[in-house]
Amino acid sequence: MIPKDHPRYHSLMTRERLAACAKAGIVSWEGLTAHGRGEAFDYLIGERTTPSALLSERTAAALLLSARNPLISVNGNTAALAAGEISDLQRASGARVEVNLFHRTEKRVEMIENLLRDSGVDVYTGKAERLLPLSHDRAWCRREGLFSADVVLVPLEDGDRCEVLVGMGKTVIAVDLNPLSRTARTASLTIVDELSRALPHIAQACGELSVTEQEQLIRSVDNHYYLAEAIREMTLRLSHALD
Amino acid sequence: MIPKDHPRYHSLMTRERLAACAKAGIVSWEGLTAHGRGEAFDYLIGERTTPSALLSERTAAALLLSARNPLISVNGNTAALAAGEISDLQRASGARVEVNLFHRTEKRVEMIENLLRDSGVDVYTGKAERLLPLSHDRAWCRREGLFSADVVLVPLEDGDRCEVLVGMGKTVIAVDLNPLSRTARTASLTIVDELSRALPHIAQACGELSVTEQEQLIRSVDNHYYLAEAIREMTLRLSHALD
Repeated sequence: MIPKDHPRYHSLMTRERLAACAKAGIVSWEGLTAHGRGEAFDYLIGERTTPSALLSERTAAALLLSARNPLISVNGNTAALAAGEISDLQRASGARVEVNLFHRTEKRVEMIENLLRDSGVDVYTGKAERLLPLSHDRAWCRREGLFSADVVLVPLEDGDRCEVLVGMGKTVIAVDLNPLSRTARTASLTIVDELSRALPHIAQACGELSVTEQEQLIRSVDNHYYLAEAIREMTLRLSHALD
Repeated sequence: MIPKDHPRYHSLMTRERLAACAKAGIVSWEGLTAHGRGEAFDYLIGERTTPSALLSERTAAALLLSARNPLISVNGNTAALAAGEISDLQRASGARVEVNLFHRTEKRVEMIENLLRDSGVDVYTGKAERLLPLSHDRAWCRREGLFSADVVLVPLEDGDRCEVLVGMGKTVIAVDLNPLSRTARTASLTIVDELSRALPHIAQACGELSVTEQEQLIRSVDNHYYLAEAIREMTLRLSHALD
């Protein structure tokens, strides 16, 4: 039992939830390591939403609202960390939600779909096919889902698939705490923020933005700026760490 | 099967080995997350031993060689990542090796001791007692082992226990890729390097250092310098990341 006044309470509770989901088979072993990498970078941006991240989140909302077929692609870590936030964002944005896994088994897909439904998500299911030009199991998706979406929010994506989705002409929004990762550099728009902070900001902006504001934000998408700003924040924090 | 020419071959193989050890119960769930945090910081120092880390490793060797009762305290991650390197360092330094776990069960202790023995380590066992002033299971250790050691190498330590060991008057050498962690700031000497790179450097220095060199190194121990240098390397790499 972690006491509520522990300085690392939120981080430790999240870690416990992930470990429980790993035991249940929802989060993969590799997912736990990936979470740890994220924690380190989150620490470096001060475990808060930076101004540039907030701008990228509002821009993500604009992209989702202007899309013909917006889609949120969910994996094990995303479901474990933010099922409720996915549900809220779906309501705010009207996006489809589909489960796509790197370490794919039918059983894992089903468990994650159930976890999402328990949090109120309307999960898009149906027959998956091998539709993406990738050698591993992430090639599997639904024809009317990820395959035909024009704007895709892919939280915690791997670099290979991010590249493929961009190559298919999709607008790819990634949530990645590592501004140096291949995903972060390849995506159309990268949100350098922790997932459970980022999603509510996107959902809120979905309810606020006028059509004119949406157009302005979309015209000024600049992924290099979001990454450079995140790096600047991390550098600043590191260089004052021993003060 | 990861192809040998994959740019992340070493990192992916290490991750696979840890996952296998987690499945076997040697590495804890929390250990996988901790490894991920380390990966992120290792990436930031360029996945190589920096000059300041090498100096701290040679100083660690000097401290172990000059100790009355040197001891290497091993946990699950350490055994999974570097059992062979622990064995070599034991031979070079004459230190005792004892297993001490945060998530302690008798079964895990035994599995880790066996893994170490299979790599040639002479493991110090015997009756463990609750000897350290800590509320959790890391209080357990052996009277003639960790409790009475004057110089302790604690790779991948937690902050609480590091503080307690320093408070008991011991010289604590930590290996921690995060120069901002409580462990890194509390230890007598912190090596900011990846464990399987750090240990062979310490072992090599044990075979090289004269008594005069040992004394010189020990006189100039400066933990703030090792940490500041590691942070400088990380900052430098971050600020050139998008070039």
